Amino acid sequence: MILCVRCWCNVDFNLRFIGEESSAAGVKCELTDHPTWIIDPIDGTCNFVHSFPMVAVSIGFAVRRELELGVIYHCFDGTLYTARRGHGAFCNGVRLQVSKEKDVSKALILTEIGAKRDPATLDIFLGNMKKMLSAPTHGVRIIGSSTLALCHIASGAAEAYYQYGLHCWDIAAAAVIIREAGGHVMDTTGGPLDLMSRRVVAAGTRQIADYVVKQLHPINYGRDDTDP
Amino acid sequence: MILCVRCWCNVDFNLRFIGEESSAAGVKCELTDHPTWIIDPIDGTCNFVHSFPMVAVSIGFAVRRELELGVIYHCFDGTLYTARRGHGAFCNGVRLQVSKEKDVSKALILTEIGAKRDPATLDIFLGNMKKMLSAPTHGVRIIGSSTLALCHIASGAAEAYYQYGLHCWDIAAAAVIIREAGGHVMDTTGGPLDLMSRRVVAAGTRQIADYVVKQLHPINYGRDDTDP
Repeated sequence: MILCVRCWCNVDFNLRFIGEESSAAGVKCELTDHPTWIIDPIDGTCNFVHSFPMVAVSIGFAVRRELELGVIYHCFDGTLYTARRGHGAFCNGVRLQVSKEKDVSKALILTEIGAKRDPATLDIFLGNMKKMLSAPTHGVRIIGSSTLALCHIASGAAEAYYQYGLHCWDIAAAAVIIREAGGHVMDTTGGPLDLMSRRVVAAGTRQIADYVVKQLHPINYGRDDTDP
Repeated sequence: MILCVRCWCNVDFNLRFIGEESSAAGVKCELTDHPTWIIDPIDGTCNFVHSFPMVAVSIGFAVRRELELGVIYHCFDGTLYTARRGHGAFCNGVRLQVSKEKDVSKALILTEIGAKRDPATLDIFLGNMKKMLSAPTHGVRIIGSSTLALCHIASGAAEAYYQYGLHCWDIAAAAVIIREAGGHVMDTTGGPLDLMSRRVVAAGTRQIADYVVKQLHPINYGRDDTDP
């Protein structure tokens, strides 16, 4: 799949490519008006290393900075999530619908830990988690794959997701899928999603999203589009 | 399956039955020398309510208080974990083997939150989690099903599991499966597993288990075999 996309990039020079591999190789991560594939070939790298069965391939596509397509493939169980802007979201061909729950005390909340493990960052991360558990919500889950967690928001299996420290290639495809399933994807401040900001809140309903946004203490991970 | 086991209990009066359903109905939870089925018909109840795809049926069997058999069925993906004492552990018929990792800095750690959500308990729970993340380990995962998390220890997909607040029906089957896969299951103090103590540490290697045991600050959930 990745090779096909790269071949296509070589044929049409207006196509751009953002991915974890190219970023790791030092290529600047920049979203322009050009049609751009935003790809994570292995989301859940730590899970992959351990054969912990939550690993995905995530492929998003943006045109004029607008997310148009999302495809996420669960590598262990073969589930395929797909969405095209304005045409709905699907899981193995079955239409997806987010949870309509508005009461946070009945919500299941998902998050991921992020790469920073210094004591101050961990204190903020765990403080945010304590707020979610104290609401009280039904619980908090950490599965080790941002994109698959976001797919659970799209399918209605959980009510909200928040994270500081993820990348644009973790969000791009999932944002299309969640929105097409009727959900909300936004900045952790409650404003519009900034794909390069390395932070996100997603939820089935605006009420749950607003609750999560109000609880969060921010963690600064910088931006994807600044030089390393 | 549950009905079959109950019919068998009615035929042979020496057989006993411990389960989440009977305990919830007020039947005293007591492990005797009699052959005893220890059953959780739905492990991951909160996940089940949300259709969050980590839910299992867990069936253990003990004779003279010794765990002899374990069967755990993953209800969403159909994976079947089985073990008989002295005869190995299997996942869909393929032999299981725990991780041989001894270095905690390369370990993936699993835990569950437990039912108590008062601020003092949450502080201890999150403090334990901070210690695991600060080791540093590769990460911590919370999937919402104790038995499936314990199966991941048996399969080598994670190095250690710890929890305060689970029940004997969450541990019984998984303890046989982990031990038969070459792993360790013990009390959170490092002593022998007490099935009724509502606490457990499980790990692939003794070195990782000892590290986890040393880090943990205890949370008191009482015992399964005391009157409610």
